[in-house]
Amino acid sequence: MTGDVVDINEKFDLFSERWSPKLVASLNDYEVKLVKIQGEFVWHTHEDTDELFLVVDGRLTIQLRDRDVVLGPGQLFVVPRGVEHCPRADDEVKVLLLEPAGVVNTGDAGGDLTAVVEAM
Amino acid sequence: MTGDVVDINEKFDLFSERWSPKLVASLNDYEVKLVKIQGEFVWHTHEDTDELFLVVDGRLTIQLRDRDVVLGPGQLFVVPRGVEHCPRADDEVKVLLLEPAGVVNTGDAGGDLTAVVEAM
Repeated sequence: MTGDVVDINEKFDLFSERWSPKLVASLNDYEVKLVKIQGEFVWHTHEDTDELFLVVDGRLTIQLRDRDVVLGPGQLFVVPRGVEHCPRADDEVKVLLLEPAGVVNTGDAGGDLTAVVEAM
Repeated sequence: MTGDVVDINEKFDLFSERWSPKLVASLNDYEVKLVKIQGEFVWHTHEDTDELFLVVDGRLTIQLRDRDVVLGPGQLFVVPRGVEHCPRADDEVKVLLLEPAGVVNTGDAGGDLTAVVEAM
């Protein structure tokens, strides 16, 4: 993948599944993933890493235990390591994720929404 | 900074200097920076790290020794570690950079364009 230009919107057009992050670029041992989100995820925590959410299209709510963080297009937020969170979106939202390689989307929670990340 | 929503376009409105990256978010030991570019930079190499360029607005050419990579809005490219490159833009372009904390913008080249990164 390194060596190619990544057009974010073109990549989003290549898949329709929700809650299934697609790997589009690697930077050292970090990964850039694209994910479509609608509905509510599971509450979970990444104990060992921060996680960056950048909204490309739509409106994303990142529920924290003490507040909701609402992101629109061109807005980003970093969920600090150890902070329990639960993404939610009433309508489909397109999100760019950035985190170290190997991070599991459901963190400590596991369950049916745990996704295998495919390159795209 | 962690804990705040970062609106990328609002941040770009806060500064006008070119070639002077502004730190807007940290993710573990990585940094998200915004930079305005116009003209030609210096040829340089980062021996120890890849570097991600995401164009927010405008058109950026990343000159490599064997080809030019041209990026428009919503397109990203990772310059692999050890690969000599020189960004160039005829008109001003707004770019999001992602790289480990402490990376010097001019890499091994140094010189007048070497910037001190300020948080914004």
